[in-house]
Amino acid sequence: MANSPSGDSVTDRIVRILDTFTTERTVQSATDIGRRAGLPSATAHRQVEALVEAGLLERDEDRRVRLGMRLWELALRGSHALRLRQAAMPYMERVQATVREHTQLAVLEQNEALFLERLSSPDSGANITRVAGRLPLHASSSGLVLLAFGSTELQERVLTAPLARISPETITDAATLRRTLAHIRRVGYVVAPGSIESVSTGVAVPVRDGSGAVVAALSVVLPRTAPTEGAIAALSDAAAGIRSTLTADRR
Amino acid sequence: MANSPSGDSVTDRIVRILDTFTTERTVQSATDIGRRAGLPSATAHRQVEALVEAGLLERDEDRRVRLGMRLWELALRGSHALRLRQAAMPYMERVQATVREHTQLAVLEQNEALFLERLSSPDSGANITRVAGRLPLHASSSGLVLLAFGSTELQERVLTAPLARISPETITDAATLRRTLAHIRRVGYVVAPGSIESVSTGVAVPVRDGSGAVVAALSVVLPRTAPTEGAIAALSDAAAGIRSTLTADRR
Repeated sequence: MANSPSGDSVTDRIVRILDTFTTERTVQSATDIGRRAGLPSATAHRQVEALVEAGLLERDEDRRVRLGMRLWELALRGSHALRLRQAAMPYMERVQATVREHTQLAVLEQNEALFLERLSSPDSGANITRVAGRLPLHASSSGLVLLAFGSTELQERVLTAPLARISPETITDAATLRRTLAHIRRVGYVVAPGSIESVSTGVAVPVRDGSGAVVAALSVVLPRTAPTEGAIAALSDAAAGIRSTLTADRR
Repeated sequence: MANSPSGDSVTDRIVRILDTFTTERTVQSATDIGRRAGLPSATAHRQVEALVEAGLLERDEDRRVRLGMRLWELALRGSHALRLRQAAMPYMERVQATVREHTQLAVLEQNEALFLERLSSPDSGANITRVAGRLPLHASSSGLVLLAFGSTELQERVLTAPLARISPETITDAATLRRTLAHIRRVGYVVAPGSIESVSTGVAVPVRDGSGAVVAALSVVLPRTAPTEGAIAALSDAAAGIRSTLTADRR
């Protein structure tokens, strides 16, 4: 429908335009957007203008373009992600108050862990995750949990593809990864030292909804040398609390 | 560009479709979406399908449609709202830990207060604000602050239009509202008892960025009988902290 002469749909063009905005690049010119989205300049300018008129993009005082508050509102207001996140927040705050390190909530999205929320305190250590950021499934504690409780198809897809080395300690061997996933399912959590950064250890647990399905992973990032028992207990308590909220939501 | 036979653009159709999802309505059939968006059924089905293919919408196991995680990611990743919210979060957590009541961050969007964030504890009292929800400017503590520090054009637009009564104590008289706004500018905060609900009092302060411009309102909702001094102090400290973070961001 509504195909352009070059054959891609307006919907695809909009996605390509929105996709040029990143955590590091929140303001761009329409020309740069077009170049980064791989669109002809006139097409990009026209489409950006239509998105500005609709409020999905906004112009700043220098006529540069940024994502609009209206887009934020439309994307969040009726969102499943927001519901999950709101159910999780009070418990995440409790984890953060107890463990006093970065606390994250991630979901499975297109073969990666997508981070819905991150709580930090000014004194928390290094952590590369960001809200709306992604990490590979095999190379993050949240991802390992999502993979361990994911479908067999997903696991086979990940296990048969090359496992990129993110840090010296990333699991890049399929047999080791398979054993790790089985272990996670048995004990109900993962401790992943140095999977992303050698100075830290990720600890993650599955979060289940009212039906018992794993819908997210809850994690903390500890300094490498910190004990993990307290974090595992705090995360497990939080996951149980989130499950009870989601169960109540369902009724 | 890319106009349909009925004359509206694909961009507008997409906005109308996304706009049918609300906090209370997170899952819909394509038929219902079309009806609520005022689109012909065939058009709605085709456009929903294109949005599902692009990941902006998702289908559940019953083929009903919900907002996609991909939409959430695209809307948030490079978002100005996310930056502001991330700068505010550690300070909001501090307010929440001190005051122990709902704590909210709101921005001005299309003549209303749009809530970017809300922290609650299970024991907080009644509060009708929701993340990605809106409230009228004249009838919420956050809105009054945003209006008080808004442009003269905005103030005149609001002051010359009818002021809807949300509760028995909503300010519906333009002269009173004008005096209230002047008072807010003088003291730097607002205490608005019963503006939304008679059982509670909203307390809000302006949040400034590195340039000194008011970019948001930070508020708490207290039980009607609670003292407000502590909340005003906690909010003012938090606003100063957020300003210093935004100032550092800017450099």
